[in-house]
Amino acid sequence: MTLKLGVIGTGAIGQEHIRRCNNVLQGAKVVAVSDINMEGARAALQRLNIEAEVYQDGHQVINSPEVDAVLVTSWDPTHEAFTLAAIAAGKPVFCEKPLALSAEGCRRIVDAEIRHGKRLVQVGFMRPYDAGYRALKKVITDGDIGEPLMLHCAHRNQSVGENYTTDMAITNTLIHELDVLRWLTEDDYKSVQVVFPRTTSKSHAALKDPQIVLFETQKGIRIDVEIFVNCAYGYDIQCEVVGEEGIARLPEPSAIQTRKNACLGIPLLTDWKDRFIDAYDVELQAFINDVKAGQLTGPSAWDGFAASVAADACLKAQNSGAIEPVSMPPRPDFYAR
Amino acid sequence: MTLKLGVIGTGAIGQEHIRRCNNVLQGAKVVAVSDINMEGARAALQRLNIEAEVYQDGHQVINSPEVDAVLVTSWDPTHEAFTLAAIAAGKPVFCEKPLALSAEGCRRIVDAEIRHGKRLVQVGFMRPYDAGYRALKKVITDGDIGEPLMLHCAHRNQSVGENYTTDMAITNTLIHELDVLRWLTEDDYKSVQVVFPRTTSKSHAALKDPQIVLFETQKGIRIDVEIFVNCAYGYDIQCEVVGEEGIARLPEPSAIQTRKNACLGIPLLTDWKDRFIDAYDVELQAFINDVKAGQLTGPSAWDGFAASVAADACLKAQNSGAIEPVSMPPRPDFYAR
Amino acid sequence: MTLKLGVIGTGAIGQEHIRRCNNVLQGAKVVAVSDINMEGARAALQRLNIEAEVYQDGHQVINSPEVDAVLVTSWDPTHEAFTLAAIAAGKPVFCEKPLALSAEGCRRIVDAEIRHGKRLVQVGFMRPYDAGYRALKKVITDGDIGEPLMLHCAHRNQSVGENYTTDMAITNTLIHELDVLRWLTEDDYKSVQVVFPRTTSKSHAALKDPQIVLFETQKGIRIDVEIFVNCAYGYDIQCEVVGEEGIARLPEPSAIQTRKNACLGIPLLTDWKDRFIDAYDVELQAFINDVKAGQLTGPSAWDGFAASVAADACLKAQNSGAIEPVSMPPRPDFYAR
Amino acid sequence: MTLKLGVIGTGAIGQEHIRRCNNVLQGAKVVAVSDINMEGARAALQRLNIEAEVYQDGHQVINSPEVDAVLVTSWDPTHEAFTLAAIAAGKPVFCEKPLALSAEGCRRIVDAEIRHGKRLVQVGFMRPYDAGYRALKKVITDGDIGEPLMLHCAHRNQSVGENYTTDMAITNTLIHELDVLRWLTEDDYKSVQVVFPRTTSKSHAALKDPQIVLFETQKGIRIDVEIFVNCAYGYDIQCEVVGEEGIARLPEPSAIQTRKNACLGIPLLTDWKDRFIDAYDVELQAFINDVKAGQLTGPSAWDGFAASVAADACLKAQNSGAIEPVSMPPRPDFYAR
Repeated sequence: MTLKLGVIGTGAIGQEHIRRCNNVLQGAKVVAVSDINMEGARAALQRLNIEAEVYQDGHQVINSPEVDAVLVTSWDPTHEAFTLAAIAAGKPVFCEKPLALSAEGCRRIVDAEIRHGKRLVQVGFMRPYDAGYRALKKVITDGDIGEPLMLHCAHRNQSVGENYTTDMAITNTLIHELDVLRWLTEDDYKSVQVVFPRTTSKSHAALKDPQIVLFETQKGIRIDVEIFVNCAYGYDIQCEVVGEEGIARLPEPSAIQTRKNACLGIPLLTDWKDRFIDAYDVELQAFINDVKAGQLTGPSAWDGFAASVAADACLKAQNSGAIEPVSMPPRPDFYAR
Repeated sequence: MTLKLGVIGTGAIGQEHIRRCNNVLQGAKVVAVSDINMEGARAALQRLNIEAEVYQDGHQVINSPEVDAVLVTSWDPTHEAFTLAAIAAGKPVFCEKPLALSAEGCRRIVDAEIRHGKRLVQVGFMRPYDAGYRALKKVITDGDIGEPLMLHCAHRNQSVGENYTTDMAITNTLIHELDVLRWLTEDDYKSVQVVFPRTTSKSHAALKDPQIVLFETQKGIRIDVEIFVNCAYGYDIQCEVVGEEGIARLPEPSAIQTRKNACLGIPLLTDWKDRFIDAYDVELQAFINDVKAGQLTGPSAWDGFAASVAADACLKAQNSGAIEPVSMPPRPDFYAR
Repeated sequence: MTLKLGVIGTGAIGQEHIRRCNNVLQGAKVVAVSDINMEGARAALQRLNIEAEVYQDGHQVINSPEVDAVLVTSWDPTHEAFTLAAIAAGKPVFCEKPLALSAEGCRRIVDAEIRHGKRLVQVGFMRPYDAGYRALKKVITDGDIGEPLMLHCAHRNQSVGENYTTDMAITNTLIHELDVLRWLTEDDYKSVQVVFPRTTSKSHAALKDPQIVLFETQKGIRIDVEIFVNCAYGYDIQCEVVGEEGIARLPEPSAIQTRKNACLGIPLLTDWKDRFIDAYDVELQAFINDVKAGQLTGPSAWDGFAASVAADACLKAQNSGAIEPVSMPPRPDFYAR
Repeated sequence: MTLKLGVIGTGAIGQEHIRRCNNVLQGAKVVAVSDINMEGARAALQRLNIEAEVYQDGHQVINSPEVDAVLVTSWDPTHEAFTLAAIAAGKPVFCEKPLALSAEGCRRIVDAEIRHGKRLVQVGFMRPYDAGYRALKKVITDGDIGEPLMLHCAHRNQSVGENYTTDMAITNTLIHELDVLRWLTEDDYKSVQVVFPRTTSKSHAALKDPQIVLFETQKGIRIDVEIFVNCAYGYDIQCEVVGEEGIARLPEPSAIQTRKNACLGIPLLTDWKDRFIDAYDVELQAFINDVKAGQLTGPSAWDGFAASVAADACLKAQNSGAIEPVSMPPRPDFYAR
């Protein structure tokens, strides 16, 4: 049975997901799309050589009887409404991050999903589907390095533009760590503190860069995440887990080692789009397979809510300079790990 | 349009390809299989939850009007006949190595394909579809290390059984290097010499292990390949290209680096099946896509023939201790690179 | 001219320095030693095949007209008195850490040295003489990675005994980072904060292990140092400097890379004595050479004072959980960098 | 007791050894030097701030009653005569490679030393004193990788001048591998073959570069050494030992790993003088210590002879293209390992 997908929002991310679902993945096809700019949507479908119904309003996609499941890749502020509508229509929905613009918005989605009685939402956090992170998690859960005590992480970007502000280091950049580190440790954040090194001369007035975010988790794990969005040298994600018995480290992206010009080295990525390119395929195939199997297992609305609550605490900590609590309500049985 | 595949031979390799085509890849489905052991074939299909017609004779698969293209994964001695039959039926055929048991058999297939007038054959050499080898080739063709002058390679296996004999180092093990090194260098072998180090105590009477195979190519590139099938420590494929400007090396399979028990290291593979597991997916998807596009581009019958001619020279060199010529006829325009 | 050395304290460290100066280094010889246990001192000299005068009191060594310069390797509480006495006698003195038991004690030595009018003291901080740290500093001062913004460090030990308490992580372990990181960055600490992850089950009641010490320097560099003295896997020193242009990392100790038992790796050290073994030779040869040249250049009494002040702040921070200031008076011209 | 050294030849190498012995090493001092160019010799001593007797004739150094032991660092063709003269005078002699210009010349020295009845000669092969090679040998002799079966080596140089000819790849470059690989394997060569890849465009008419030299040892170990003297990218020595249980590899020279300009790498050496700089210190200190202890243990005249015999076979193989025997007479008990 081919799962019939509707895609809301045909911008860059939407087009990539449409391409994936139709041309790369198994068991699904895109039958309907929507975009405020219908001409753009039609042009995108033509470029991708895909036939699908084109609507202007995402709600039309959600309500179409032809559509089994929905991908929300529209403008961030619209995510909450479309996700709630999909839940109301009883249709599985893959919602690109952010699940909602606020923790409260995420909570509304969680409540709606619980009321519906069955998980319908997968949030587009792709790192749990990255082969490196999965291998790293396996090392931990196999007990190879003992109980985790500390994580040392970094999220580095070559450069950002003038529109990137200090808070975006949390909401746009760190948001991925906020999810994947909960998944890696199977734990929740208890508190967060943000410290600022001297700012790089490559930054601009509205951006303090780099930043270091320090977490304590419920189990007492200490996590430091360096966020450096004008690092100059490349796009670089680092994650090292220090356990009671040993240390495990996320692999560098596979690359050809060369000896040239008096240097022995491997090339590093420069474009963020290349780093998790396979994980997008894997997360969507997992969504498709899970919908067909009748049970979603990926990052949940609760995970979206947890990331949002943590992000709020990080933003508060950026401004207060203090150690801010991360106040999560108890995890509902509905979202049991 | 879904390409309808017939699979001849439902042993381990056949079952894996059936699973791939139906469950992982896009645009094809298996509609017919054959195996001398029809019960085994039916049981395999049941395990894989696949419905397909079951025949005892591969020719029935080839001749079925329901079958668009054929995968030959049967007992080695039957490959030539099935491939010739597929060509005779005008159907694209993916033939697992060996294309035929002899260079003459490969030549018969080449001649049949040329007479047919259009490429129909893809040989199951998967290494040109391995991401590492592809990246390595790109470094070379981009000119990053200048003209290649030497290649240093190794093909190591943890251990082999009593049935593995000295010649199998060429026919079963080196055969993959014979193809991929031609592809990497875009060159043909001119001569080959085999030297034997002292044999490991872990070998047995009918197997001189390790062996070192030394090639000179038409362009004058020197290639050494260490074949060590009882190396004890793991399954390990190495390939280093020394060019006029620098050196490039095939990456190690991605793995988690750990610090544990006074060692900083990464795990190595032990099972050959894990090393190129992704490449099998890629080679078959390429076959499917190429058939649908009407133009095969993968390892050709000529490549199968070239590998077989080279293998024969290697076997001769094993026994003579001399430098043996590798006599390839000129490449037909039909198989222009 | 052979520099005539007196060594105060013939315990393990003292014996090692005696061996170095007489048998390995150039231009000096040990002519006098002292130890409360004169029999032990004589036995040590006999084992080392060295002839020297044996005293019970270090002051006799300092005052001996045969002694040109002094090494203080006695019980920690005696360091201050012997160093002050050497200054009073106008003799160069190499004092093993700690320079004194308190910042005030270090200050007394600083003041005495300034009054003397010429540097006489070198503190036994060996890491600035380690080839790896020197190469790392050169990369920074050459401008290769731009202005340093952050340092990520770790000091890990396989295990410690029951006598090792939480404060010793600062006074015995971190003390080396306290000196070398000032040297690396050519900066002073401004504040320090200590956070505690969950304690490893391999620790004991009087030791919270691991710990993470967070510094801000005067120039705004943020430094994190993980101290983990029961890490189980080995003795491991890490130092990564993140600059505006790139990142530089302290090398792993040179070791043979092996492929064995399905692992590709290098051995890690387990004994702290092996990590900086060459640096002890280099620091003492530098002391000898500097004394003969008439100008000390190594870690100074001011550096010993600075490390002690920083250590005090770290101890305070361990207990308060707050960000504690590191209050250093202005650097006297006498100790200009 | 300070060993009194005479140095014959005050060119670049001679000056470096003079500097080492007087300023770095223990237990020796240079009391006499000679050079055809006495003015140059005096100027060198002045630069090094060393007082010593200056002669024009090396025999005057050898015969001086002030000289205990001799270093021969003169023009290659004079090595044999000076070494024989030192043996005749009963004085220990450290002779820079080549021991003599021919195998016959080396044999004369061996015979003279045996007649003298005690080892007096150490040849200046420094690689057995390199920390990396020593660690590699220890891994082998500890049995960590089982019996060695194959060695894969490379000796690469960035570029050479117009005076460097094909044979010099053996006599000047490979000569070091010829010694150290016998030392590593505790074995002798049985046969050698030289193959030529296509020549790099960076070479010149009188130099076929690169070359690959293939050895079989008496124990049946197969060794391949790539010699590439215009490799363009750096000065690079590689040595990988494949044993029955695993593989061990010579370490890269320690260097700072950086992330910069989209590259993660370490710098490689470009100047051959930097690669074994420490080994020169170690080999001379060993010579000094051994002379004082009355028993030489370093590379012997027999080792110089063995390297010369092997080199002759390599030169023959360069020209014949055949597998040439390496005919070594039995090792005299005088030189028992």
